[in-house]
Amino acid sequence: MERRDSQESTTLTKREFLRGFASVSGLSAVMAALDAWDMSIASAATAPPVLDGRADGTRVLILGAGIAGLTTAYELTERGYDCRIIEARSFAGGRCQTARNGFRLEEVGGESQECEFDEGQWFNTAAWRIPAHHKSLFHYCREFGIPMQTLISSNESTYLRYENIEGPLVGRRVRRREVMMDMRGYTSELLAKLAHQGALDGELTADDREQLIEYLVAEGYLDPIDLAYRGTTERGWAVDFAGPLEPGQPSEALALRELLQSGLGNTFRAVSSFERPYTMLQPVGGMDRIAAAFEERVGHLVTYNAEVRELRQNGQEVQVHYRDVPSGDLVTATGDYCVTTIPLAIMRDIPNDLSDRCKAAIGAATPSQVGKLALQMNRRFWEEDDAIFGGSSQTDLSGGSVIYPSHGFLGRKGIVQGYYVFGDTSDTVGAMGLAQRTERGLANGEKLHPGQFRSHYDGKSISVDWQRVPHSLGGWESWSDEARREHFPVLLEPQGRVYFAGAYLSYLTGWQAGAIESAWYQVERLHANAASV
Amino acid sequence: MERRDSQESTTLTKREFLRGFASVSGLSAVMAALDAWDMSIASAATAPPVLDGRADGTRVLILGAGIAGLTTAYELTERGYDCRIIEARSFAGGRCQTARNGFRLEEVGGESQECEFDEGQWFNTAAWRIPAHHKSLFHYCREFGIPMQTLISSNESTYLRYENIEGPLVGRRVRRREVMMDMRGYTSELLAKLAHQGALDGELTADDREQLIEYLVAEGYLDPIDLAYRGTTERGWAVDFAGPLEPGQPSEALALRELLQSGLGNTFRAVSSFERPYTMLQPVGGMDRIAAAFEERVGHLVTYNAEVRELRQNGQEVQVHYRDVPSGDLVTATGDYCVTTIPLAIMRDIPNDLSDRCKAAIGAATPSQVGKLALQMNRRFWEEDDAIFGGSSQTDLSGGSVIYPSHGFLGRKGIVQGYYVFGDTSDTVGAMGLAQRTERGLANGEKLHPGQFRSHYDGKSISVDWQRVPHSLGGWESWSDEARREHFPVLLEPQGRVYFAGAYLSYLTGWQAGAIESAWYQVERLHANAASV
Repeated sequence: MERRDSQESTTLTKREFLRGFASVSGLSAVMAALDAWDMSIASAATAPPVLDGRADGTRVLILGAGIAGLTTAYELTERGYDCRIIEARSFAGGRCQTARNGFRLEEVGGESQECEFDEGQWFNTAAWRIPAHHKSLFHYCREFGIPMQTLISSNESTYLRYENIEGPLVGRRVRRREVMMDMRGYTSELLAKLAHQGALDGELTADDREQLIEYLVAEGYLDPIDLAYRGTTERGWAVDFAGPLEPGQPSEALALRELLQSGLGNTFRAVSSFERPYTMLQPVGGMDRIAAAFEERVGHLVTYNAEVRELRQNGQEVQVHYRDVPSGDLVTATGDYCVTTIPLAIMRDIPNDLSDRCKAAIGAATPSQVGKLALQMNRRFWEEDDAIFGGSSQTDLSGGSVIYPSHGFLGRKGIVQGYYVFGDTSDTVGAMGLAQRTERGLANGEKLHPGQFRSHYDGKSISVDWQRVPHSLGGWESWSDEARREHFPVLLEPQGRVYFAGAYLSYLTGWQAGAIESAWYQVERLHANAASV
Repeated sequence: MERRDSQESTTLTKREFLRGFASVSGLSAVMAALDAWDMSIASAATAPPVLDGRADGTRVLILGAGIAGLTTAYELTERGYDCRIIEARSFAGGRCQTARNGFRLEEVGGESQECEFDEGQWFNTAAWRIPAHHKSLFHYCREFGIPMQTLISSNESTYLRYENIEGPLVGRRVRRREVMMDMRGYTSELLAKLAHQGALDGELTADDREQLIEYLVAEGYLDPIDLAYRGTTERGWAVDFAGPLEPGQPSEALALRELLQSGLGNTFRAVSSFERPYTMLQPVGGMDRIAAAFEERVGHLVTYNAEVRELRQNGQEVQVHYRDVPSGDLVTATGDYCVTTIPLAIMRDIPNDLSDRCKAAIGAATPSQVGKLALQMNRRFWEEDDAIFGGSSQTDLSGGSVIYPSHGFLGRKGIVQGYYVFGDTSDTVGAMGLAQRTERGLANGEKLHPGQFRSHYDGKSISVDWQRVPHSLGGWESWSDEARREHFPVLLEPQGRVYFAGAYLSYLTGWQAGAIESAWYQVERLHANAASV
């Protein structure tokens, strides 16, 4: 799972937010908010640390069999450590998790769901798309030979349909491609004409001006004679051709005025997000193929259904008291070291003897509120009727995106994501039961695919509200810049014999690569200490 | 194969062409040329014609086992026709063709090649990417259950490196994302500032102006206070972060002046091409999976290695004289009807008794010149070192694109396309031997991936120059608008008992969907006549 929704699905909300924000805070606050939200980042890490020597028999208790815990166990075992993983769930992977037939999902205070999707259908409940620069995750995908495929994050062919806007585009379904083309066409025209009239002659040489106009003519499909934008077949056709003698009908551009009134153009950026570009990657068959590959190698080290209840240490060893869920017994495990990858939202309630500074750090991260709904459709109407393969369509309902699968193309059935909610909306939706959540998704999807979305839903859905999921209590942890500066140094240092690891302890908060790189960081430090003992 | 190279690979050449063109023809000719080149088109056809009644035992000779011939045989057989396909090659599919280990490729007057790629590696020598709106082709992919995957046509992460440009960017490798972001950032800034200064007050209301500025701030990542573009992390990072305490270094925007001088921005358009968008589709395992699926169903009707030498008809039947290549014998096949899908460049030299108008039509299409080179690399350095998954990088060598595979991600080896040449360049390159063609691709690729491209090439290449391929003599046929108007009606009418079909007889010249829809068109007409006999 990554830190936030796709750029295109949050932007109108963001614009509205910023507009309100600007009215009370002035433009510089808007700028600061934009900066924080649009920060993309890449890591230099490509391979696990090279560890000198071995530490045969050194016992390490690893708390949590998510990606950070599995990475820790895999790397330490290679160097001779005697690793044991204590995992609260009945399976490995944590939020690297895929719902398919038989998958059970429980929520605190919510109903229990069992996934009834058809054989071969699946949905990634949390982590779902991987950017090209997450080299640390790819390290393991390569090492384990996990087949990967494209995840189409954005697709110009998808729809926008907004109701809470102004002008003639209210409630009208348009393709992103149309709006994007027309906005760039018109703005190219406006600038090209002004440049041609000399409005930029103070800033540009005559050569530069001509080069600029040439660029704008190409970018905006302008008429090179009068520099006007009059549409282009690249925005799509009004009527497709109907045979070798019936050439079809090009589409007409939307009017600039109605586009500006609608604000729909503000859902775009000059380039796709660096962190969530047009195309990303996913494992073939579900994100949990990554967890499964780790499990194949270190699964024998995991004690499942074991809820950590207390964490203690002395100068010699670490003691972890856990509840064996099937029996209800309280069991104690001991190790020379401990690496805890338990989410901080859980960790803060586990009795321990960590320092006050450490406890403060644990309490300072904010668990994110995020929820998803997956709907099984009995026909891939978005492919067959709308020529949409992957990407997402969007209404202005908060979190009201419809995300299409990037796999199983041209098959019969398919799983569509019916919403992707964050923050307060996630809270509100999470308070609903599955039936009500499903209805929210169907009603919204029907606006994007009228006459199709509801009628092709075949009654099988699954939804997750991550702040209600036991052993997670949040989608991921986020930090203010200030909290990060204050608390990272504490959590990165060993607390006696206890080390912290997890995506929250990296710049890639909420990404699997962050979990891996955090594990690498601590494995290197633990080994340096264990070797010197 | 489609009609032309990817937008981004031809554009600088096109710009230079247009610049020259403009100097002799004026701007309106430039516009006309742009229109013709950038015309995208979509078809309404989704399913084969519904044919009433049967025509059991009616004998149809189908010339050519490419997609048009296979479609014809498949549909007519369903209605009881007794079909027979005469195919010059030893395999079905025509230009729906994939090179893999053992594949043999002959060129007229050229050396014979045998593909030595590793097991599991493949390269589509002709047709290679399918747009989302080619519903007729998808009809068969669904019917035959052919697994499909994403083909990444364009990728913002790929490189541009041009030498024949001006200014500081000469010979400098940049990511498309950087240039695209900076050009849109600066042009957004220029227009936002002019709008803010009132330069558009004659055309826009105050509300519209503010909406426009808001759009430009979002689109161009402008500072909302002073409307300046100062770069953004979305264009990429100068230094990636190196751990949880070392946050990395954002990149700096290129200067507007040097961007304009270079003309690199002119390689972009507001949206991806409607016909060749960012993401397209391909069959898993190679384009020939489509041919293979047809062959499974109608392959028993094909006579392979049979070169048509003469086509005759009388009032009662059609006679096709063909050379059986293995024996050298001349053999005669007879049918009640004939559907010829033989490329017009071949057809024009086959003796026949067609009308003069028909012969003129056959001679009027222009076979396209196109060539490709595929190189096997022993490491996927573009993925591992450059975080590039699919798409193409580009130098300003004509046809000098490097196209990365959209499949086999994170594997060990991979096939990279080393050039994609058209027109005169294709002629020049086609005159070279394989070794020289390979060297051209390696030298060009080395500019985009210095120190990598040549050293990771593992000595296995295959190249095709379509105008030299026997039984094809061109990549596809193209028409001037005038020639199409004049000759389509002739070729669409039955010539006695002979029908013409092929992608050249559709608006989707050079696309498999065009071949299918042309076959559907003629199957319907043939059946109407056969039923009335």
